[in-house]
Amino acid sequence: MIHTIDWEVGWSDREFEAPARWVPATVPGAVQLDWAKAEQWDDHTYGENWRQYEWMEDKYWTYRAHLQALSLSEGERLYFVSRGIDYSFTIRLNGIELLRQEGMFTPVKLDITDQIRQGVELEIVIEPAPKRVDAPISRSQADQCCKPAVSYGWDWHPRLIPLGIWDDTYLSIRNDAHIVSAEVIYELSDSLDQVDLNLQVYLNQIDSEELVWRMINPEGETVFEHSCAVVNKKCTIQASIDKPKLWWPHDHGEQPLYTSEVYIYSTRESRSIADHQSQRIGFRRVKLVMHEGAWKEPSKFPKSRSNPPITLEVNGRNVFCKGTNWVHPSIFPGTITADDYYVLLELAKTANMNMLRIWGGGIVNKESFFEHCDELGLMVWQEFPLACNLYPDSPAYLKILDQESRSIITRLRKHTSVVLWCGGNELFNAWSKMTDQSLPLRLLNANCYELDRNTPFIMTSPLDGMGHGHYMFQYSPSEDVLQAMAKAQNTAYTEFGVPSPSSVEQLMSFIPPEELFPPKPGTSWESHHAFNALSENMWLMADQIEHYFGPYESLEQLVEYGQLLQAEGYKCIYEEARRQKPKCSMALNWCYNEPWPSAANNSIVSWPAKPKPSYYAVQASCRPILASSRIPKFSWQDGEWFEPELWLLNDSPSTVQSGRMEAYLTLGAGTRQLLLTWDFASLEANVNRRGPTARFLLPNDDCTRLTLELIVVDRQEWNSAYTLVYKGSGFPEKISRSTLNF
Amino acid sequence: MIHTIDWEVGWSDREFEAPARWVPATVPGAVQLDWAKAEQWDDHTYGENWRQYEWMEDKYWTYRAHLQALSLSEGERLYFVSRGIDYSFTIRLNGIELLRQEGMFTPVKLDITDQIRQGVELEIVIEPAPKRVDAPISRSQADQCCKPAVSYGWDWHPRLIPLGIWDDTYLSIRNDAHIVSAEVIYELSDSLDQVDLNLQVYLNQIDSEELVWRMINPEGETVFEHSCAVVNKKCTIQASIDKPKLWWPHDHGEQPLYTSEVYIYSTRESRSIADHQSQRIGFRRVKLVMHEGAWKEPSKFPKSRSNPPITLEVNGRNVFCKGTNWVHPSIFPGTITADDYYVLLELAKTANMNMLRIWGGGIVNKESFFEHCDELGLMVWQEFPLACNLYPDSPAYLKILDQESRSIITRLRKHTSVVLWCGGNELFNAWSKMTDQSLPLRLLNANCYELDRNTPFIMTSPLDGMGHGHYMFQYSPSEDVLQAMAKAQNTAYTEFGVPSPSSVEQLMSFIPPEELFPPKPGTSWESHHAFNALSENMWLMADQIEHYFGPYESLEQLVEYGQLLQAEGYKCIYEEARRQKPKCSMALNWCYNEPWPSAANNSIVSWPAKPKPSYYAVQASCRPILASSRIPKFSWQDGEWFEPELWLLNDSPSTVQSGRMEAYLTLGAGTRQLLLTWDFASLEANVNRRGPTARFLLPNDDCTRLTLELIVVDRQEWNSAYTLVYKGSGFPEKISRSTLNF
Repeated sequence: MIHTIDWEVGWSDREFEAPARWVPATVPGAVQLDWAKAEQWDDHTYGENWRQYEWMEDKYWTYRAHLQALSLSEGERLYFVSRGIDYSFTIRLNGIELLRQEGMFTPVKLDITDQIRQGVELEIVIEPAPKRVDAPISRSQADQCCKPAVSYGWDWHPRLIPLGIWDDTYLSIRNDAHIVSAEVIYELSDSLDQVDLNLQVYLNQIDSEELVWRMINPEGETVFEHSCAVVNKKCTIQASIDKPKLWWPHDHGEQPLYTSEVYIYSTRESRSIADHQSQRIGFRRVKLVMHEGAWKEPSKFPKSRSNPPITLEVNGRNVFCKGTNWVHPSIFPGTITADDYYVLLELAKTANMNMLRIWGGGIVNKESFFEHCDELGLMVWQEFPLACNLYPDSPAYLKILDQESRSIITRLRKHTSVVLWCGGNELFNAWSKMTDQSLPLRLLNANCYELDRNTPFIMTSPLDGMGHGHYMFQYSPSEDVLQAMAKAQNTAYTEFGVPSPSSVEQLMSFIPPEELFPPKPGTSWESHHAFNALSENMWLMADQIEHYFGPYESLEQLVEYGQLLQAEGYKCIYEEARRQKPKCSMALNWCYNEPWPSAANNSIVSWPAKPKPSYYAVQASCRPILASSRIPKFSWQDGEWFEPELWLLNDSPSTVQSGRMEAYLTLGAGTRQLLLTWDFASLEANVNRRGPTARFLLPNDDCTRLTLELIVVDRQEWNSAYTLVYKGSGFPEKISRSTLNF
Repeated sequence: MIHTIDWEVGWSDREFEAPARWVPATVPGAVQLDWAKAEQWDDHTYGENWRQYEWMEDKYWTYRAHLQALSLSEGERLYFVSRGIDYSFTIRLNGIELLRQEGMFTPVKLDITDQIRQGVELEIVIEPAPKRVDAPISRSQADQCCKPAVSYGWDWHPRLIPLGIWDDTYLSIRNDAHIVSAEVIYELSDSLDQVDLNLQVYLNQIDSEELVWRMINPEGETVFEHSCAVVNKKCTIQASIDKPKLWWPHDHGEQPLYTSEVYIYSTRESRSIADHQSQRIGFRRVKLVMHEGAWKEPSKFPKSRSNPPITLEVNGRNVFCKGTNWVHPSIFPGTITADDYYVLLELAKTANMNMLRIWGGGIVNKESFFEHCDELGLMVWQEFPLACNLYPDSPAYLKILDQESRSIITRLRKHTSVVLWCGGNELFNAWSKMTDQSLPLRLLNANCYELDRNTPFIMTSPLDGMGHGHYMFQYSPSEDVLQAMAKAQNTAYTEFGVPSPSSVEQLMSFIPPEELFPPKPGTSWESHHAFNALSENMWLMADQIEHYFGPYESLEQLVEYGQLLQAEGYKCIYEEARRQKPKCSMALNWCYNEPWPSAANNSIVSWPAKPKPSYYAVQASCRPILASSRIPKFSWQDGEWFEPELWLLNDSPSTVQSGRMEAYLTLGAGTRQLLLTWDFASLEANVNRRGPTARFLLPNDDCTRLTLELIVVDRQEWNSAYTLVYKGSGFPEKISRSTLNF
């Protein structure tokens, strides 16, 4: 039985100083939002409102609640339970300290039965946000703790560090005899046609003499029922299932989930249930394997090694991972609901994505996130909370990382969707300077090995062969993304970005009217990341927009041009990555979503869950089967040979029948011209086909766009179209004067 | 008190079948040698004698000993102790099984006090050599066990798999109250001027109430003495030493060793010693760090990662590692004595080497090896017994690897000389196919983290950036080792070989006279690795010898030519690796020594400890300071410009004063000609100086050799000389017909 708690919150400057004022608190949530609500502040997402919150990160925040006397029945106990309190905190009951903890990912469960016989005051004192003493005001303040670094300020996240109770927190009345944990670990046979199960149960006390374990299949039928004697509060049972239904990512099969149910009884005779727990289980085997041909490289002496494996094999089948980098969907993770997760996850699935990389700068999501992923057939690459910092080898940091990582692994390993553990983001790059020798990463390997060895582990992204970036359309003065990506030879593109402005409607919702146009630094455009995010022009990158389209004359034009670049840029990268299969096996753009409304960002879904045009472009490029073209560059002019290469991409587990593809070119609003007809032979499952290259001499024309359309006869769901820039005679003269800032 | 045991040994075809014949056994040793001695066989190193031993690997070998009744005093206990039994075995006392164990690196200690009150028969039944059932007759038979793979046959090791008691084994009478283990773990402060010590002691029983811990400095003075109460058979004491003397590799400083002594007493009053243990400790801090400039690579997008670190930092100073790959010094490791180790190690130190890579194909050496290394200032790169195989993720293999690696780590971590753990040899290459995801390697990383985290760990060699090979003088028809190495850009050359024949005297000692010349396949030349070792010509590689020198007419000439190639080849690689500092930080040739007399091999020390000419060349190239030249190629002719580049190499911790270097060229036995004089400025510690390039047009001459001499005025100990081939008019015509086999 669950009891909610009514909380108040207030702040003070010192740990043992009572707050001067108490305001109502929403739990889960964040102290900042409670205070803002009490002060009736405008929304923190509008304009420069977020700056009001800055002072709060350095205060002591105290939650308090008066718990009334409870008369518990014989054999009942009362627990205070919290799934997460952010970040360092002390829990007191009537002023007496019950627990002091650092770490927001380690749940709390305190038996307060004896104290609750009379009314008590429960307090949770949250310490100021952790900061390394001598660090500059930046993410490096978070480099000795397990607090997500993103809150300390990022190029798409304002400096705003949430604090407080961020996950479900309540009082729970339980029988003294209850199940502390009941977990099934499984191992699939090599041939995948049998699964061996191991149930391990820990009980709170030894009263219960027997437990019953029942396995329910996805159709709701009981597969088996076993009972087991409890010895020393523990019980282990083995079982197996023949021909289990396998869980697949949604684009490769179904997501059958079994349910393991464990019951204990009050007395053997009455069979009245004292407690039960259930666990949903999807059976799948995941590995990181070498790509085809990998062992042949390198060939020269002195001989080094092949690239490390990053091809994901699911149930014996190589799965090309198409997906995205997931970030905080809110500055305040405490406010995220199961429905919020669902809307974003359903959108990702609809975009034909099968993998989400949960980037290490942010939180480890709540349970409902993983439950949805299990059900939706979305695979999760889960990072630990380390990003872009040099996390130290110090005993203090290793201790907290050990605690938090163990909590994270034991919670998430139950979820079928979690297919990859990763130490954190960009830890081997120059801005982090960690290495394979860093003790925090060796610790994470050891903990993942100990607690969940059948799920692959990598220390960071990128590893050798994998690539991050670039985060713009034009890579250098002489190279656009279409040119650069055709030369790249990475095994996985685990971050790549093309920025765009948000929609006009979105921009109007948080930028004051007088600042709207033209966009300028020093306004809400800047604090919402359009300027000086990483460099002067990021992320609006108006210089690149002007480079291709000439000067923009309205907000609508700027947004249209920028969003076209983003859509075509992402289309190029996803499809090029797929063309590079089997060497390449992964394409995850940076990034999917946003923690608040940005003015410009690499995201394809605006806050909170509004798809940009690029979302639909990505959706098209991630279709399991599609017509695709390797186009030599983005910007064309008359007298050049237009030479698109045709491809048929197939990531699906199905063969493709032979057929016909037609390529058409349209100049501006002109007539569609047939460039080429390709009669392709049938295609194996999960194999691409490289087709012919069309050749067409571009005529003089005053149009500003070219459109390449690929039509698959009788399979219009595989058709594709690309919009390119044509700098014909109608193109603004000014364009040649625009300079790119690299 | 130690009692030796008199053993006999015999074999049978089945586990519970008694041997038909018993012969005296030497312990430690190998069952094969005992049998051979009883049969009065000739030495196994001569000719084809080794083939006699083949059948023995598949037998059950039983050691037996009659232990007489012992009357122990009150409070005394008797233990059967073995430091190593190879490989799977059962120990029985009067037919009753006491222990069944797989693994030669986990010591045995059995309390047989109660059984020994009357005479007993002790038996150790050794199982046949472990072999994967479906494997071909090769090293892959060893891919599911922790038995060193080399014994199953290698390109320099015959197929001969030792079995038996291979390390010290005896009866030990001890007080019931004795020290089970007493180990000091230390941590140096960042500034290296304080060391914090943690002593952890486990006792056999709780009688002892107090223990005393005394620390003796290298001069024999007591630094501190602490006493501590024993609680629950355990005791932990902390202490620290200010300004500890640091241990250095021999070319960077002294090897001061402290001694930690732990005493327990029979009774508090009498102070009579019940037991004591001592441990020698050298204080040093080792890390693997990134080389200078490493973080700038790679620079392009999509951005991958920098090479993993392999530069060894000792006590805050980067140390260029010059050394070699150590292999079994005997086919039968059980026969290796402390003196055998000492002779080889002293030779390595005299060769100016500071690091030995203990290659994973072989055994983990006995204690005396590491004791010598601690004293001699030789650093040890220690691999686990995995090499060139795909060791599986199976629970059975992981279990034995867990046991054996824990035994190895806890034994060796006490040794100052062990500066690097490594999973094994060439595991990430195509012939092994393991990866970073392989559970055995993740387990080894986890165990090293848990038990010895302050010593670096790498999964295998080579890693990215590091290079293995090549193993010949001519790398391709158009490229010799001088040309190839100048183009290489590796961070560490952890294996590289150039083969040569053994000396004439050595060859005559094991090749029957009728087979001696000319060398032919199918003779003892072949079984001693001169032909068909890896390929038809390996390792004699007469084709390469003929390519440079023309046909050989005698054994003496063949040996002279081959040994010259080896000496000059190794000189090139060691010095080129040093010139590539700081990107490169390591040069370890393949290999140092041999398990038996080879006819041709990459070794520089012939079995058992006879330096080849290349040994002295390597010794010269590894001097801390020397004049060196990057010479464009090995073979010259008239009309070519001879353009050696001059260098002064300094790996020492000392600055080098300014001075003068002179370069002289001599054609054949002609007059020495001055090519260049270089007045070099003074040089920082551990920094090289690239000097000028000389240019000299080679005249027509009938000589067959060029000699380049580098003379450092007043510092003749830095002088160098290189011998090159000159294909002048006197060169044999035939030469142009020789073809190289690649």
